[in-house]
Amino acid sequence: MDEFEIIRRLFTPDKTSDSVIIGVGDDGAILRPDAGRDLVAVVDTMVSGVHFPEDLNPADIGFRAVAVNVSDIAAMGGRPRWMTLALTLDNADQDWLEELSSGIASAASAFGVELVGGDITRGSEFVISVQITGDVEPSLVMTRRGASPGDSIYVSGSPGDAALGLSLIQSGDTQLAGSEYLIGRFNRPDARLQLGQAIAPVASAAIDLSDGLYADLGKLLAASGVAGVIELNDIPLSDALLRAVDRTDALRYALGGGDDYELCITASGASVIGIGEHLKTPVTKIGRVLEGQGLSCTLGGEAYDYRDDGYRHFH
Amino acid sequence: MDEFEIIRRLFTPDKTSDSVIIGVGDDGAILRPDAGRDLVAVVDTMVSGVHFPEDLNPADIGFRAVAVNVSDIAAMGGRPRWMTLALTLDNADQDWLEELSSGIASAASAFGVELVGGDITRGSEFVISVQITGDVEPSLVMTRRGASPGDSIYVSGSPGDAALGLSLIQSGDTQLAGSEYLIGRFNRPDARLQLGQAIAPVASAAIDLSDGLYADLGKLLAASGVAGVIELNDIPLSDALLRAVDRTDALRYALGGGDDYELCITASGASVIGIGEHLKTPVTKIGRVLEGQGLSCTLGGEAYDYRDDGYRHFH
Repeated sequence: MDEFEIIRRLFTPDKTSDSVIIGVGDDGAILRPDAGRDLVAVVDTMVSGVHFPEDLNPADIGFRAVAVNVSDIAAMGGRPRWMTLALTLDNADQDWLEELSSGIASAASAFGVELVGGDITRGSEFVISVQITGDVEPSLVMTRRGASPGDSIYVSGSPGDAALGLSLIQSGDTQLAGSEYLIGRFNRPDARLQLGQAIAPVASAAIDLSDGLYADLGKLLAASGVAGVIELNDIPLSDALLRAVDRTDALRYALGGGDDYELCITASGASVIGIGEHLKTPVTKIGRVLEGQGLSCTLGGEAYDYRDDGYRHFH
Repeated sequence: MDEFEIIRRLFTPDKTSDSVIIGVGDDGAILRPDAGRDLVAVVDTMVSGVHFPEDLNPADIGFRAVAVNVSDIAAMGGRPRWMTLALTLDNADQDWLEELSSGIASAASAFGVELVGGDITRGSEFVISVQITGDVEPSLVMTRRGASPGDSIYVSGSPGDAALGLSLIQSGDTQLAGSEYLIGRFNRPDARLQLGQAIAPVASAAIDLSDGLYADLGKLLAASGVAGVIELNDIPLSDALLRAVDRTDALRYALGGGDDYELCITASGASVIGIGEHLKTPVTKIGRVLEGQGLSCTLGGEAYDYRDDGYRHFH
């Protein structure tokens, strides 16, 4: 298959909504935004062997590439709408591409986003770059910048699971109790879309967790010009994580592991907890915002010196 | 520099327009569209060594990556507005990145598009993927699908120059008369934005030339469900191209060379010519739309059997 055939056969949705005036197949897509809403634009790229193991199931690669972008939209309080895709392929094995395409389509369906265009190029390694345009009610935009001293700090789900899941994929250790759950947390991130939209009216700031709770919360605090402290005993750790590793390592995965795609939220009241309960999405208070700068940790109320080894490109 | 420093120092514009509510630096960008206009979404990726020579000046790489996307917007009759950028870097040499960034900024300024977000990843080869969201008056959208029998076929500029420019870059032959012009046509494509917007009310269809006049016009005709014939003697060839190679090779560059980023347009009247004159953008009639399917060529009115060797990935 050449690139046009690949696009036509694998990356052209059977049907599109009324908002897609022209979809895949022209020089560009023509899209009709809803009046009165702002747009949310996000982009995230994944490189084979850097962001996921080279032999990862292509359906999972596709799902994940979409989900991590949806997670960014969720962190802004937005709704994903239209997606474009840039693929650099190192080969054109048809079965592999079909699985990739099915994973992208699953995520598109799960998160309510439509594929409207893309570009396929040849290169020496596989790179997938997803760009999503969503929309948001202008008065309900969440950013990283609004946290104030006195706010509480919350996290959704149980951070650390995906990072352990990745290390299980890498070590091939799939016999461990809970490994299926943990690996699934890496391969098929939830992207807290409903939660993001529901908390937008009450949250003062939010960020999604891609580089690890410690690093990402640090970015939120820095953007807001405030400090924060988190109590490590309050960080929600999954049973699967606690069964697989000791508590110290579990905290290390949760703080520095990355790939969670949970939301970290600051808010002044406690309504975030109730919203989470309503949506059956666990939300846990883990700390509070202070004056000053920097993120510190306590363990059982005592100062705890955590050193971040969160993942960064180009160290 | 790590990825956050690169983004902050090199890929964060000093100022943005009122339409950019939140730009680079949060989970996503928040953008305010103009009421009543549709969006135009395009994406194009370039891989080092595939789409341009590896030792190409990084400022030219950056300019070109933006321009080829703007060209797609032009072919839809749109106006580019906001750009996101996905870079996969095989090294992080600061001077090289600064030049890349300056080329992107030059193109952004030349075409009136604002950088609002992006993602930088590490990989084993350089890949640049640019996504632009523009807008368009809904009643003035141009597509590939509207050509009708009886329409004339037009092309802007002088196709073939960029392809010869690329071969001059590759051979290192920069002493040839006109080489600077020809190489510039590859490195700094014009992107016929004003022309696209101006002809949108009168054109029946349009496409931009990336894979070569023959291949791209063929796509327009196929999308419209019509046939076409072009007279090779009517194809506008630049003096520089005709001085550098003989007429047969010049036509081969013009028909199959690619990388022109000119517009190929169909329209029923002759007003496209006048619009081109008004904008000081050469527009030339080269053929006409017929019933049936396929693109044929004549040379001095006689049938001419041209075989396309237009560039396609994954042949």
